[in-house]
Amino acid sequence: MLFHVRMDVHIPLDLPADVAGEIKAREKAYSQDLQRRGIWRHIWRIAGEYANYSIFDVKDNAELHDILIGLPLFPYMSMTVTPLCRHPSSIRDDET
Amino acid sequence: MLFHVRMDVHIPLDLPADVAGEIKAREKAYSQDLQRRGIWRHIWRIAGEYANYSIFDVKDNAELHDILIGLPLFPYMSMTVTPLCRHPSSIRDDET
Amino acid sequence: MLFHVRMDVHIPLDLPADVAGEIKAREKAYSQDLQRRGIWRHIWRIAGEYANYSIFDVKDNAELHDILIGLPLFPYMSMTVTPLCRHPSSIRDDET
Amino acid sequence: MLFHVRMDVHIPLDLPADVAGEIKAREKAYSQDLQRRGIWRHIWRIAGEYANYSIFDVKDNAELHDILIGLPLFPYMSMTVTPLCRHPSSIRDDET
Amino acid sequence: MLFHVRMDVHIPLDLPADVAGEIKAREKAYSQDLQRRGIWRHIWRIAGEYANYSIFDVKDNAELHDILIGLPLFPYMSMTVTPLCRHPSSIRDDET
Amino acid sequence: MLFHVRMDVHIPLDLPADVAGEIKAREKAYSQDLQRRGIWRHIWRIAGEYANYSIFDVKDNAELHDILIGLPLFPYMSMTVTPLCRHPSSIRDDET
Amino acid sequence: MLFHVRMDVHIPLDLPADVAGEIKAREKAYSQDLQRRGIWRHIWRIAGEYANYSIFDVKDNAELHDILIGLPLFPYMSMTVTPLCRHPSSIRDDET
Amino acid sequence: MLFHVRMDVHIPLDLPADVAGEIKAREKAYSQDLQRRGIWRHIWRIAGEYANYSIFDVKDNAELHDILIGLPLFPYMSMTVTPLCRHPSSIRDDET
Amino acid sequence: MLFHVRMDVHIPLDLPADVAGEIKAREKAYSQDLQRRGIWRHIWRIAGEYANYSIFDVKDNAELHDILIGLPLFPYMSMTVTPLCRHPSSIRDDET
Amino acid sequence: MLFHVRMDVHIPLDLPADVAGEIKAREKAYSQDLQRRGIWRHIWRIAGEYANYSIFDVKDNAELHDILIGLPLFPYMSMTVTPLCRHPSSIRDDET
Repeated sequence: MLFHVRMDVHIPLDLPADVAGEIKAREKAYSQDLQRRGIWRHIWRIAGEYANYSIFDVKDNAELHDILIGLPLFPYMSMTVTPLCRHPSSIRDDET
Repeated sequence: MLFHVRMDVHIPLDLPADVAGEIKAREKAYSQDLQRRGIWRHIWRIAGEYANYSIFDVKDNAELHDILIGLPLFPYMSMTVTPLCRHPSSIRDDET
Repeated sequence: MLFHVRMDVHIPLDLPADVAGEIKAREKAYSQDLQRRGIWRHIWRIAGEYANYSIFDVKDNAELHDILIGLPLFPYMSMTVTPLCRHPSSIRDDET
Repeated sequence: MLFHVRMDVHIPLDLPADVAGEIKAREKAYSQDLQRRGIWRHIWRIAGEYANYSIFDVKDNAELHDILIGLPLFPYMSMTVTPLCRHPSSIRDDET
Repeated sequence: MLFHVRMDVHIPLDLPADVAGEIKAREKAYSQDLQRRGIWRHIWRIAGEYANYSIFDVKDNAELHDILIGLPLFPYMSMTVTPLCRHPSSIRDDET
Repeated sequence: MLFHVRMDVHIPLDLPADVAGEIKAREKAYSQDLQRRGIWRHIWRIAGEYANYSIFDVKDNAELHDILIGLPLFPYMSMTVTPLCRHPSSIRDDET
Repeated sequence: MLFHVRMDVHIPLDLPADVAGEIKAREKAYSQDLQRRGIWRHIWRIAGEYANYSIFDVKDNAELHDILIGLPLFPYMSMTVTPLCRHPSSIRDDET
Repeated sequence: MLFHVRMDVHIPLDLPADVAGEIKAREKAYSQDLQRRGIWRHIWRIAGEYANYSIFDVKDNAELHDILIGLPLFPYMSMTVTPLCRHPSSIRDDET
Repeated sequence: MLFHVRMDVHIPLDLPADVAGEIKAREKAYSQDLQRRGIWRHIWRIAGEYANYSIFDVKDNAELHDILIGLPLFPYMSMTVTPLCRHPSSIRDDET
Repeated sequence: MLFHVRMDVHIPLDLPADVAGEIKAREKAYSQDLQRRGIWRHIWRIAGEYANYSIFDVKDNAELHDILIGLPLFPYMSMTVTPLCRHPSSIRDDET
């Protein structure tokens, strides 16, 4: 089941650079692990912003929630979640 | 080059059903042709709304604009276009 | 899986009363059938507005979407869908 | 008498973890006590957000207000309160 | 129990003047009857707008809803309802 | 001459409790004095929020402004002021 | 007593040109009469919009309201009214 | 050439009173000098808010910008600038 | 003197195609004449929308207003006008 | 390929003046270098605001993103990016 998520990152200006760097490194590893497992299907940077659009493929709302609150950057993010369905014009079978 | 587009469709309540049906059939054919050619990469229905999120892969802004204004449903749509980049955490090479 | 939906109804002022009445009767029957089957778990009127908050229990996003676009009043409604999870403080087991 | 409440929690990033933990523990106990007494009828987590939708069953506005300002997390929350009525299509008798 | 209601009136420009006049006359009678019974406690015109702020004293949400949807101008209005409580600084006993 | 004012209070989380308490005590005395003199006609708490709706009866805009900026809590408030008139449907003579 | 008013004019596209012309002529006469009497102190066109900012000098809210609803273009306008006071830095005595 | 400017002042709560006082004194002198020279034509306090509406008469956009960024309170203000024209209904010649 | 203008075009769905076509032809001629005279410095289509960003070089607000209300499409447009200045980092002399 | 960018700068009030000055000097050099290379085609100050409208000419979204996140002031800015196309009424060939 697919969900569209917009994530906006707001790292406080006074967070020490090494702390921020360590959190971002963990965020990247966390994201890539989920991408490799086919759960975090897509992630795109929004041009000019510290923000992304992502597509998740999870079995239910609870799995999505657990993944999102587990993000190392979660305390610095605002999220917008939109549930998706297969579009009747889609030619792809795996976009349910 | 990728773009994220949200399309909201507002078909007037007094548009005759056969006219609406004919436009929607042309819309579907138009969309599927672009999907087969790899230009309209993804299209997802937003649950509960007559709206979709789509990803386009075009060579420039002009190609995107020509595709969008050519949509048979364009006169009944509002659009929000967001330019995308490859995300530094992405494990995919083709998401530029 | 639970979803929270806000529905706002905007029936055009020039819709003949008998047409409107017939649509509303079908809407009520449609809603009550889903309530009896445990799918449309709750529906509350918002005081002073032609609008409701509803809770749906469906197996996935697609089932929710099919139910919502099947509403006889759907062409006259705007919808806001929010995916829900069990709250960690909830004492109920069936609110997943 | 039923009310729909959306609560958004914004805990400051510099609140010490043990202070935050102690407040959340009191919040949970406070909420569960009201749930057991049938006053806080429902609480659902909004997927991907530190926020919930809740339904309260109180005798009047004053009782609702006293409950909400008594929440241990109240100083860190924003609230949206909506009064509800029984929906004419509801099949339930207790949703007044 | 008190509620604050903002009502904005949008009468269509093409509604015949005599029809509009007849609805407004019924609205006035309806309002004054409720004022005399102490239910519609206050009504003030917002300067420069076809809108009012009103205070209702009702026994519950359902009574408020029934009064509001019974307004002859209801199909031409948008409403915002806010539940009120006695303010701790109020010197009046009847503002609960 | 009547004015409708919405006041939202935002006391900083780090204001010492005794300072806040002292300001609130002065606020209450200030408000009750104006209520007794018939100038601050009504004050209602908005359920679930640290906010109120108030009605002021003043001789002109300047008197209203002086009262509002004199509020001990003014530096922590945001205000929305709306000028009111007697409503043509009102049965009361003193609501001008 | 001074008020700041923003007026936005939305004349329907299908209003016959001669009807619109006649209303605008009456509007101009109405406005100029009030300007000559010192009540409508200022009126400025907002560049690029069919809208104006105006300053009124009236004895109270009721006089302002009566003037505004008497505008021949009132049914086609939306209004925003803001009460003004003399600014403590003003060097003018008549801007109360 | 006239411009309408709305200025909202947000002085931080922790700015020492004497620093704030000194800035406000310079602001007042700066404003009154421009008023005497006919450049800052009008300034009105918005009732209940730490904000003003002002009218400037400058030779071009650059002069307006230089004046506004030169305000001693500029770092604590948000601005909204609207270019004005003489209104065709105005009876005044100097409101261009 | 430069101004930034955003124009959004909303042609009614029921405007006959030949009428719309004739208006658009006049609009194009009007725009190109002003471009050739150096007044309408730039015009860009916003990708995916029936809208443009334009830069005008005029002698004052009045000239800008007269140009904009003279647009054949003006009755179908909404406008947002922003006055511009030379940026202190600009390397161009003619961008005042 | 052209993009329209609005940049709003929010430098914290407590950033030391010499730090801010050094960042602004680097920003200016960075901007002028890109202007000289024809990439940052235009930059205009918005009158009365610490904000600019800019036009960029880049080969794709990625180049735009890299330029924007490289701005010395980027951590203190909010951005709005809009992709542009040549307008069919434009008389210029280089505005693609």
